[in-house]
Amino acid sequence: MPAEAVPAEPAAKRSPRPSGRDTYTPESLLAVAVEVFIERGYDGTSMEHLSRAAGISKSSIYHHVRGKEELLRRATARALDGLFAVLAEPAARRGRAVERLEHVIRRTAEVLLAELPYVTLLLRVRGNTRTERWALERRREFDRRVAALLREAVAEGDLRADLDARLATRLLFGMINSVVEWYRPQPDVPSDASSGSPDGERITETVVRLAFEGLRR
Amino acid sequence: MPAEAVPAEPAAKRSPRPSGRDTYTPESLLAVAVEVFIERGYDGTSMEHLSRAAGISKSSIYHHVRGKEELLRRATARALDGLFAVLAEPAARRGRAVERLEHVIRRTAEVLLAELPYVTLLLRVRGNTRTERWALERRREFDRRVAALLREAVAEGDLRADLDARLATRLLFGMINSVVEWYRPQPDVPSDASSGSPDGERITETVVRLAFEGLRR
Repeated sequence: MPAEAVPAEPAAKRSPRPSGRDTYTPESLLAVAVEVFIERGYDGTSMEHLSRAAGISKSSIYHHVRGKEELLRRATARALDGLFAVLAEPAARRGRAVERLEHVIRRTAEVLLAELPYVTLLLRVRGNTRTERWALERRREFDRRVAALLREAVAEGDLRADLDARLATRLLFGMINSVVEWYRPQPDVPSDASSGSPDGERITETVVRLAFEGLRR
Repeated sequence: MPAEAVPAEPAAKRSPRPSGRDTYTPESLLAVAVEVFIERGYDGTSMEHLSRAAGISKSSIYHHVRGKEELLRRATARALDGLFAVLAEPAARRGRAVERLEHVIRRTAEVLLAELPYVTLLLRVRGNTRTERWALERRREFDRRVAALLREAVAEGDLRADLDARLATRLLFGMINSVVEWYRPQPDVPSDASSGSPDGERITETVVRLAFEGLRR
């Protein structure tokens, strides 16, 4: 089963494969685990749940990973690596701060859409385990770096100075992150303004326009 | 125990009152139930959990309500009544659409902060029961009415016409609603820009400025 096929159907509703043979790659097993974590919550997921959703035995899963916390670590790392990679892109490192910030906001929304289940899981992490606390700390570090960029753009005179940078950053990420609550990719349906299902590009553009220009003409 | 004292301490960590006497009013019992629903999830909450958190017997709770679904209905109704009351305010009904929309955005943020646990619960409702489906439908109706107001303001020439009204409304509510993830009222601490704990008024003002003017000068 290719990894990219997994998110199409909820993991818990998929029938176990009749053979029960373990043909998983690390990536495809991770994709199944992430769907189960999102459905049941990480705390509410047992190795038994993962075994049933994947259609392979618990010992087959232990062949791939030491336990469910390793799966959580790899899943949240995938989301965080995608986000931090944005900060390392040339357009996020060179030029006026306002342009770098716009690039980061746009690319953060794109990473969220491209890595939807992984970012969704990251946003639900609560801090009960060492891995969750690590993921939360990395998220905060990302927020701090974006807030610092926003302050730089204010100092360069391109952004309004009457906003609390940390609060504005929180609200912007709140807007971007809220997309995971309702966005479901529809790869075979062409984008159509009247369908009520905006495609990823329209979402990203609307986020960037609202963030920088607001609603007013 | 006065109702307003309840949210200060997580319900599940409060000790049962030694007497076990039922001195609850409908409002104070509701406040305890909402805290438990938020902590454990509505599906994960039993009457036993509510009884333990309230420190009174299950039959005492049944003296107040028919069951946990009635508590959910009353809690989500409180949040929804607060939101719909905003749409009925004179400033939401008279004048240019852009001014009415600004009033609605500001007051929606204020209601969220004033009714924090009730709105938090409303935002977590998923649709497994009749009450949850009712609450979701009312939320959608609220969103539709705000999207219609946004379209009116575009038609009057005050808002940019290059935005998808429904998508923009979703993103704005995403921004406002994200505040429940981190805002904790601190009634005895004066607001201080350096403390990292913005007060309600600063949050509301920043939401309105970002929504209408964006980050750019």
